[in-house]
Amino acid sequence: MDPNYYEGNEGRLIFTEWDPHGVGISWRIKRAITHVETPYQVIDLYETEDSGRLLVHDGAVMLTTADEAAYHEMIVHVPMLTHPNPRRVLVVGGGDGGTLRELVRHPTLELARQVEIDGEVVRVAREHLAGLATAFDHPKVDLVIGDGVKAVEEAEPGSYDVILVDSTDPLGPAVPLFEEPFYRSVHRALAEDGLLAQQVASTFYHLELYVTIVRRLRGIFPLVRPFTSQIPAYPSGNWGFALASKGPDPLRGLEAERCEPIEQDARYWNREIHRAAFALPNHARRELEA
Amino acid sequence: MDPNYYEGNEGRLIFTEWDPHGVGISWRIKRAITHVETPYQVIDLYETEDSGRLLVHDGAVMLTTADEAAYHEMIVHVPMLTHPNPRRVLVVGGGDGGTLRELVRHPTLELARQVEIDGEVVRVAREHLAGLATAFDHPKVDLVIGDGVKAVEEAEPGSYDVILVDSTDPLGPAVPLFEEPFYRSVHRALAEDGLLAQQVASTFYHLELYVTIVRRLRGIFPLVRPFTSQIPAYPSGNWGFALASKGPDPLRGLEAERCEPIEQDARYWNREIHRAAFALPNHARRELEA
Repeated sequence: MDPNYYEGNEGRLIFTEWDPHGVGISWRIKRAITHVETPYQVIDLYETEDSGRLLVHDGAVMLTTADEAAYHEMIVHVPMLTHPNPRRVLVVGGGDGGTLRELVRHPTLELARQVEIDGEVVRVAREHLAGLATAFDHPKVDLVIGDGVKAVEEAEPGSYDVILVDSTDPLGPAVPLFEEPFYRSVHRALAEDGLLAQQVASTFYHLELYVTIVRRLRGIFPLVRPFTSQIPAYPSGNWGFALASKGPDPLRGLEAERCEPIEQDARYWNREIHRAAFALPNHARRELEA
Repeated sequence: MDPNYYEGNEGRLIFTEWDPHGVGISWRIKRAITHVETPYQVIDLYETEDSGRLLVHDGAVMLTTADEAAYHEMIVHVPMLTHPNPRRVLVVGGGDGGTLRELVRHPTLELARQVEIDGEVVRVAREHLAGLATAFDHPKVDLVIGDGVKAVEEAEPGSYDVILVDSTDPLGPAVPLFEEPFYRSVHRALAEDGLLAQQVASTFYHLELYVTIVRRLRGIFPLVRPFTSQIPAYPSGNWGFALASKGPDPLRGLEAERCEPIEQDARYWNREIHRAAFALPNHARRELEA
C-alpha cells in the first residue's frame, strides 16, 4: 500500500486513506498535532488545510471536525428521539466525546455510561478536540475505561433504554461488536422499548458487509431499520448505520416538543433528515430486502 | 497543484481530483483508454481498478460508470415524474449519453433534443461508454452539436416541457449556464407547468456557490427546490441539484402508474429516494432559507 502520510508535489504534506474496495480520500495537512502508540492502536491527529482536525486510528479516518456532526448527531438523535422516554444510555466506544456531547442535549437522560477501551483516545480528545470533548465531566456521564463487550455482557438485563455502538469499522479489532453473541447481549441488556444504534459501513463500497450485518440484527431484533448519513470524510460520503429496536419505530412520527430544541442547535439533524435517512437507493434496497 | 495522473508507490497509476475547497479523491488506474484534445477541453478516459471507467474533462471528474446512475437517474426522473405530462425535453450538455438513456424510459416523451457543444464527448461515449451511449440513435432523440445557450435563446417560447442542464461545474466554461440571462431564456422556452433541472455543486464543500445559484433561480421561477443525490465520485459524495418549476411541485405526490416501471429498472431512483432527496442537512437548510 501507499503510505498514508507523505509529501506530495510542491512539498505539500498529504494524508490519504485508501479504501480497500474503493477510492482514496486525501487531505492537505498543515501539521501533525500528535502521534500516540497505545496498547490498542496508533492514534494520529492532524490539522488539515480545509477540514479542521483529522483523527486517525491505525491509518483509518475516524473523523474530521468539519463534518463529525453528521455522524454524532445521527447516531444519537435518531435513536433518542425514536425512544419514547430514554433515560439510561450505554455508549460502547465513542472516545472522542462527540456522542456524549449530543446525548446530554436530551432532557430525559439520567445516565450516559460510556465504556471506551482506550483511555488515550479520551486524553487526546480532551487535549486537542475541544469541540467534541465537552461532556466527559457532565454530572449525568459515567466514563469507564474498559471492554465494551464485557460491559454489555455483564449489564443487568433490561438496564438500558438505548445502547450506542460508536466503534471503529467491522474489519479490524472491533469485529466482535458486529457479531451475534454481542447482539444477543445487547438485546438482553436493553429494557422494553429499547434501541440499539450502530455505525456499520458504506452503503456503496461495502454494501455486502452492510447487508450481512443488518441481516444478523434482523435475526435477533423484531425491527431493524438501516439508515444513512452524509459524511464527506468517509468513503463514498454516505455512511450506513443500523437501528435495531425492541418496539419503537423511527418512522412512526416524532414528538415536536422534544425535537424542536435539538433541531434548533443541530448542524446536521432535522426532522426531514431523520425521515430521509431511512430512504435507501434502489441498489442497496434490493440487497437489503432480498 | 499536484498532477492529476501519476505513478504512486509500488508503481501503481493513480488519478486524483483535488477539490479547491476540500479533499482529493483518488482512483487506482488500470490503464488510460483515451486522451483527446478538442477545441473545448481535454477529455481523458481511464479504466479504474474498482469503479469501472472514469471520464475526466480538463482534470475534473465527470463520472465513473460505477455510480453514474445516481446522477443520471436523479437529473431525469425527478423532473420527468414531477411534470404531469412531459413530452418535449431539451438537454443542454449531457454528451456522455446517460441523460438520454434515462429520458427514453418515459413513455410520454415525444422529443428529446440534446445540444452538446463538443461532438468529441459523444464520439468517446459511443466508442468507450457502451452502458451510457444507448439512446443517441433512438427515434425520439434529436442530437445537435452546438451551443446550448444559443439553442435555449432561440427556442420558440413555451416549446419545451422540461429542460435539463447536464453540464460541467459553474466554475469553468459552463459559467453562462448558471447566470440570470440564461435562466430567463429557460423560463421563456418552457411551456406552462415547465421544469428546469440542473446539476450545481456539492452541498458541503461548495455550499456558498450552491446557495447563490438557488437564490438566482428563485428570482426567476415561482418554485425552486434544491435536492441532492449520493454520488461517491464527486467531492463530499453528496451532490446538489436544483429543480426550478413554473408550477408542479416534486413533493406533491407521484403517480404510481408512471413510477413503477421506472423504479423497477432503476439502480438509484425510487419513490422514497425522490422525496428524501429534498431533505437537506440543517447547515445547508439554514443557508438556503436565510
